[in-house]
Amino acid sequence: MNFLEERIMKDGVVKPGNVLKVDSFLNHQMDIELLDEIGKEFHRRFKGADITKVLTIEASGIAIAYPVAKEFGVPLVFAKKSKSINIDGDMYVADVESFTHKNKNQVIVSKKFLNSDDRILIVDDFLANGCALQGLISIAESAGAKIEGLGIAIEKGFQIGGRVIRNLNYRLESLAIVDGMNAETGEITFRKQD
Amino acid sequence: MNFLEERIMKDGVVKPGNVLKVDSFLNHQMDIELLDEIGKEFHRRFKGADITKVLTIEASGIAIAYPVAKEFGVPLVFAKKSKSINIDGDMYVADVESFTHKNKNQVIVSKKFLNSDDRILIVDDFLANGCALQGLISIAESAGAKIEGLGIAIEKGFQIGGRVIRNLNYRLESLAIVDGMNAETGEITFRKQD
Repeated sequence: MNFLEERIMKDGVVKPGNVLKVDSFLNHQMDIELLDEIGKEFHRRFKGADITKVLTIEASGIAIAYPVAKEFGVPLVFAKKSKSINIDGDMYVADVESFTHKNKNQVIVSKKFLNSDDRILIVDDFLANGCALQGLISIAESAGAKIEGLGIAIEKGFQIGGRVIRNLNYRLESLAIVDGMNAETGEITFRKQD
Repeated sequence: MNFLEERIMKDGVVKPGNVLKVDSFLNHQMDIELLDEIGKEFHRRFKGADITKVLTIEASGIAIAYPVAKEFGVPLVFAKKSKSINIDGDMYVADVESFTHKNKNQVIVSKKFLNSDDRILIVDDFLANGCALQGLISIAESAGAKIEGLGIAIEKGFQIGGRVIRNLNYRLESLAIVDGMNAETGEITFRKQD
């Protein structure tokens, strides 16, 4: 087990309905030492790629992106979620339909901050059905930027998001892939990775 | 001028209606070096206070809170904004009425992550009318935590938020206080501070 899998085993809480609560260290209260370690690990995995920007989505993604952007010495850009439809022409907009909530949202990034010279690393804390990540990919593609890879802290391997993105031939690295959970016993099964 | 005032002069953009755009370095695209410097400066100012937690509000507040929490070696807790009213009993909730948008929002934090032993530093990127900050204060008070201080990157000194919070006798430190802006000339006037 790597450091993140160990932390999930220690402090993650499995709830009925395949819910994994990691709000004590990752996405409500945040352990900065752990996040710094996540930043170093993504830098180790993607450092060959000459990244120019780290792209994420609000809100908890920002805390993953911060240490990654710091390690690479590049700016962090975060996409905003919006329900409004009146966006001016200065924005890249991706319409994203949520599998879970059956509603539509927009993911937006100012055109000032992404362009065709950029080599992007997209990061986020969670990957389940992948709607947010698909929005970020769509925006980076709209900008003509090169997506060098995607780094996720925790992937729910039994949901569709990871498979979709790997099928599209993007390089997706998830530090922990949860293949199963048992709310009664609290057991968590991680996918074996090299 | 301090480092943040210099950066605002260099890269901030004044728009009609007393709007100051700092989205190229502070709240959409983020300059991690600058944010690290902000973290160090708040640590210098508040290090006598034995802080146990840094509290902020999503989304851009997280990027200010990250380096501050890192400097203090304590967890970051971020409040969520919600429009829903069905919150379970495990949450501190503050109802916050926006001066600008005339709507009501809720600011919520899980009770697990704040308690009466905590000595809190509240941080955010912007202070104008102070609605978000009032919500964070209300939540910290609900938890019985001690508010050691509030650290703001940019305060709009001509709006009411800063005065309200100082009148309530909280220690509020704003790295840059903008007392006036001119959208025609681009001029920005900072309040002189010691």
